[in-house]
Amino acid sequence: MISQNQSKRIRSLHQKKYRDQYCQFIIEGVRSVGSAIEMGAQIDLIIYTQDFTKKNPKLMIDIGPIPSAVISSQEIKALSPSTSPSGILAVCNIPAFESLNNNKNVIYLDCISDPGNFGTILRTAIWFGIDQIGLSPGCIDPFNPKVVRSAMGAHFNLSWMGELSLSKFEGYILVGADHRGEPITSLDPIPKKWALIMGSESHGFSVDVQSSLNKLVAIPKIGEGESLNVGVSMGILLYELTK
Amino acid sequence: MISQNQSKRIRSLHQKKYRDQYCQFIIEGVRSVGSAIEMGAQIDLIIYTQDFTKKNPKLMIDIGPIPSAVISSQEIKALSPSTSPSGILAVCNIPAFESLNNNKNVIYLDCISDPGNFGTILRTAIWFGIDQIGLSPGCIDPFNPKVVRSAMGAHFNLSWMGELSLSKFEGYILVGADHRGEPITSLDPIPKKWALIMGSESHGFSVDVQSSLNKLVAIPKIGEGESLNVGVSMGILLYELTK
Repeated sequence: MISQNQSKRIRSLHQKKYRDQYCQFIIEGVRSVGSAIEMGAQIDLIIYTQDFTKKNPKLMIDIGPIPSAVISSQEIKALSPSTSPSGILAVCNIPAFESLNNNKNVIYLDCISDPGNFGTILRTAIWFGIDQIGLSPGCIDPFNPKVVRSAMGAHFNLSWMGELSLSKFEGYILVGADHRGEPITSLDPIPKKWALIMGSESHGFSVDVQSSLNKLVAIPKIGEGESLNVGVSMGILLYELTK
Repeated sequence: MISQNQSKRIRSLHQKKYRDQYCQFIIEGVRSVGSAIEMGAQIDLIIYTQDFTKKNPKLMIDIGPIPSAVISSQEIKALSPSTSPSGILAVCNIPAFESLNNNKNVIYLDCISDPGNFGTILRTAIWFGIDQIGLSPGCIDPFNPKVVRSAMGAHFNLSWMGELSLSKFEGYILVGADHRGEPITSLDPIPKKWALIMGSESHGFSVDVQSSLNKLVAIPKIGEGESLNVGVSMGILLYELTK
């Protein structure tokens, strides 16, 4: 059971305004909640259905002393930002990030507004060991529930994420992903310290970003199509840059 | 203007049953419709709003003699499978694919049920020149509107797509994407004729598929995370396999 106030508070976190106000956000699903626990994320409350506890005994042990409550599947449906709730949901504090570490590489997102792509980008960045994410104005809120869902816990692995002008990235080679660029297959040498800049699929780079780039790289097209998905592109470029 | 019957027919295509019955499906958005026209797809009808025509004069020229109709934005909202319709929608015939060409490489999808991932996979396959897609039972319908949306016209570039048992892939090295596999970075030699098998993120390979695989390949993890998104993984593996 949870109180009406708790319930209202959780639902309010569907909106950016309240996520900003309370510095909290919602994560959902066994994998995301599991990885938040594993990463030692600050979790305010976990709620789940009876049915979920039966199917996921291991996660129940991991939850241990974290405040939690069992509710009905109808109630979780009302609280969940998802149309098909997974049976578990947690309210977490937005991580207190460190500041930008100028000795580490970084991903910079220029007006990435699609939540699924944004989440996939975070998940992929973390896999390749890049835990600093710069954002231009106009990106979707990184704690939007759909972003969080597709990031699969990556938020808790980031050391820094924030809105910052590209001019602040001192000493970085600013590498932009663009079909007119040099093939990534033959990029030699790979810059020592780079920021990989990904623009939006439909609008490309914004004017400010475009004029700051030092180098353009492309993924050679063997077959057909106008472009690759931005998450897939970034995955391939990161794979090469971190080889 | 379109008739009530046309309108009913279009709405029916939101459901697989009627897509199968009429052998038609819906595509939406300027990029998908544009690429369908360019590829010479059999388009039954294009509908758009007045506002769309003003913003996309080039596409209007490309539409040329294809049957088309202007409707209100309210009407297109009622016909579109999307919650935020783009202003243009086309009813296309499901392509008549050739049969499997045993001399060309192939992607095989094992129970891929997420529509966004499925569409991204098609788009990525086409980019890397792979135009044959095998499907296990249990995949989402490839002509589901959400699949079609994220495939961005890739359906019209495929030479073959169909449900087929893995045992029919004679002479292929069956390469499965799996974190326990050989690092793709050191795969040497790359098999001459391969089928790249992608399993579902949450359930891995189905039992039948698992027992048929000849080789497992993995994308080395440099940082953190449990897995990569299936579309991103496939992109990186294809990038290496087609180098």
